Amino acid sequence: MNLDDCRRLDAQDPLAALRGQFLLPDGVIYLDGNSLGVLPRAAPSRIAEVVAKEWGEGLIRSWNTAQWFDLPQRLGDKVARLIGAAPGEVVCTDSTSVNLYKVLFAALSQAKATSRRIVLSERSNFPTDLYIAESLCRERGFTLKLIDASELPAALNDAVAVLMLTHVNYRTGAMHDMKALTAAAHAAGVLAVWDLAHSAGAVPVALNDSDADYAIGCGYKYLNGGPGSPAFVWVHARHADRFEQPLSGWWGHAAPFEFTPHYQPASGVARYLCGTQPIVALAALECGLDTVLAAEPFDGAQGSMAALRAKSLALTDAFIALVEARCPGRFTLVTPREHHLRGSQVCLAMSGNGPGAYAIVQALIARGVIGDFRAGDSQMPDILRFGFTPLYLGFEDVWRAVEHLVQVLETDEWKRPEFNQKLAVT
Amino acid sequence: MNLDDCRRLDAQDPLAALRGQFLLPDGVIYLDGNSLGVLPRAAPSRIAEVVAKEWGEGLIRSWNTAQWFDLPQRLGDKVARLIGAAPGEVVCTDSTSVNLYKVLFAALSQAKATSRRIVLSERSNFPTDLYIAESLCRERGFTLKLIDASELPAALNDAVAVLMLTHVNYRTGAMHDMKALTAAAHAAGVLAVWDLAHSAGAVPVALNDSDADYAIGCGYKYLNGGPGSPAFVWVHARHADRFEQPLSGWWGHAAPFEFTPHYQPASGVARYLCGTQPIVALAALECGLDTVLAAEPFDGAQGSMAALRAKSLALTDAFIALVEARCPGRFTLVTPREHHLRGSQVCLAMSGNGPGAYAIVQALIARGVIGDFRAGDSQMPDILRFGFTPLYLGFEDVWRAVEHLVQVLETDEWKRPEFNQKLAVT
Repeated sequence: MNLDDCRRLDAQDPLAALRGQFLLPDGVIYLDGNSLGVLPRAAPSRIAEVVAKEWGEGLIRSWNTAQWFDLPQRLGDKVARLIGAAPGEVVCTDSTSVNLYKVLFAALSQAKATSRRIVLSERSNFPTDLYIAESLCRERGFTLKLIDASELPAALNDAVAVLMLTHVNYRTGAMHDMKALTAAAHAAGVLAVWDLAHSAGAVPVALNDSDADYAIGCGYKYLNGGPGSPAFVWVHARHADRFEQPLSGWWGHAAPFEFTPHYQPASGVARYLCGTQPIVALAALECGLDTVLAAEPFDGAQGSMAALRAKSLALTDAFIALVEARCPGRFTLVTPREHHLRGSQVCLAMSGNGPGAYAIVQALIARGVIGDFRAGDSQMPDILRFGFTPLYLGFEDVWRAVEHLVQVLETDEWKRPEFNQKLAVT
Repeated sequence: MNLDDCRRLDAQDPLAALRGQFLLPDGVIYLDGNSLGVLPRAAPSRIAEVVAKEWGEGLIRSWNTAQWFDLPQRLGDKVARLIGAAPGEVVCTDSTSVNLYKVLFAALSQAKATSRRIVLSERSNFPTDLYIAESLCRERGFTLKLIDASELPAALNDAVAVLMLTHVNYRTGAMHDMKALTAAAHAAGVLAVWDLAHSAGAVPVALNDSDADYAIGCGYKYLNGGPGSPAFVWVHARHADRFEQPLSGWWGHAAPFEFTPHYQPASGVARYLCGTQPIVALAALECGLDTVLAAEPFDGAQGSMAALRAKSLALTDAFIALVEARCPGRFTLVTPREHHLRGSQVCLAMSGNGPGAYAIVQALIARGVIGDFRAGDSQMPDILRFGFTPLYLGFEDVWRAVEHLVQVLETDEWKRPEFNQKLAVT
């Protein structure tokens, strides 16, 4: 595969025009949309409108005139189309961590009446998910048990209350089989809680078809909602009116404007709301959601996310092939090669776990190829992590990214001191 | 007092120029800054800059180049100047309700080892505070006891774990004596948790001088942070490193970028953070905070908030005097008349609790005089609520607001059907 091949693929790409939805900085090949999605072209003017008109002119009247109160559900309905949920089942609100606290609390409340006292998760799950689970388990008399992914099915037994997993692993890009694991969990009487941070907008997700119990996810990664954008939360309809909401704030009340002194949870999805939500941030998130939904017409009969998934796999296949062809012996592929086992990112480790992962990422960033580095430990190697967002990446971008990588390696550019100094946030 | 008197007061007002900091809609006299503050003139361009430059251009690099990670503390230090706290004691994050959950959880954790099992609050406390407390108390084996404000001191005994109060009442505008009640609480071995939603930026607050234990507050009322702006949280230094944080997310971790699997809370104020915060909303909040801090140079030796407080009292005194002089017999003053007993709002009930409160507020809004209505119940009358923000209100505004009120009453305008139809959000 050469540059001409890549250009030909771009010319044939039905999704190529979707890149026009974004404001991408000049000279940047952005392979970090799994960390923070890029700016939708519609966002600056929409945000300016919300600020000047809804806040500035409408002021408090905008709760009625701009329907602020409906925003979490209206956006939730858009997310629902991307994760196999039904309208009215999702709200956009709070942060991913806070939403995980809500759903895990609810799942543990359901398990309280049983003798099950284990929350099962993966050792390499995203740390903040483990932090939330660790505190909540300690507080409520449960034990968080961390094992390797391969050990999960065998560990589902009648001591386990909840299986809590991130669908696509933040480090490796490995993707769980949500339907099979949920079925295995249910067969063992275990509730399944899924974190979709690296799935929503990245891969097809079928929550209802998988019969999952609870799910949460992030707005600022593949959904392009902007830095720190509100997250989302979903609960299966069978739990929706029984879900215990520990963060029982006014917005989740059955009659929020009656100012009654006692909490009465709203039925259904509104129950998952708590305090007043950042309206400007929700407006930005809606612009991001719309960029992903713009790919829907290309899905055809194959269903939600089919077109984006096909292009994502083609891009990542091309990246893997080019890295292996042009940097032979330098890297080990950490991400599973098989399509059904991975999300929309590709992670590389240095062959033999040699040095350089951090500095190579920094040298690439200096060249405008933005990926990120994730430090390893005694069990996991340091990795170079590259996220592929098919909405705004093409095959020529892939070719150029690898070309930069080749140059960084061949010239030993990565050995320069400035690329070996740790930044505050990595 | 007539219109000329008011104009003379405006001409002598040292804070008059601060109004220039805001973009106020034409024809509006805004008496609802206690519900949603107005748009700072600096906010649209600052927000546009964060969106275009920090998000759009900087992308993920902005965590380092734009110091996103420091925002909650940097803004917290600005809030600290307004509430009698020290630098490093406050963070801006999450919603008021979520922050109340955090601090109340922490206070209840401290009480767990004792036999104290009551959380004491005021029957007319803000409902969302009561909702959060109600669920948390039930979950953790405590009882929420609601009484009238006058009964509070006598009810502080060795069965009470926590006294949870809102400093300035959202309905009546009545202000508690924070220092005296905190001292009474401590004398009885009770922790004091304060909600500053209607205090921060409205009245002088002296958290450390009052020796309070925990406090939270709102960013979008008197702090002008924009709709649903992040809230703030403060904890006295004596608890700061021992505070139990139930929402144990990555941002409150001692080493958030080491991605270790176990939660280790950060020391001090950073412990109160949880998930990723809405960066654009934080930028807007900073613009709001700066509008309030712009009054600091006028405080002189009297300390924080002195100049704003003096003008607030003068405005509210004028409003009360004009209403009583020009609408004799129509209204009962619900807000205490004495300065030391009230915040920066004035609430009126219909004399004899007659009809019209809702419709009069709607008729005023139609005339551009924006206040709000709060429904009563068997114990409390319906009220017309008027918030006074001295940063952007003058004495002529007060005069005109009352003139509109007189006209609405004299012409029976408020009886029109359109002013008697309930809006979705009131």
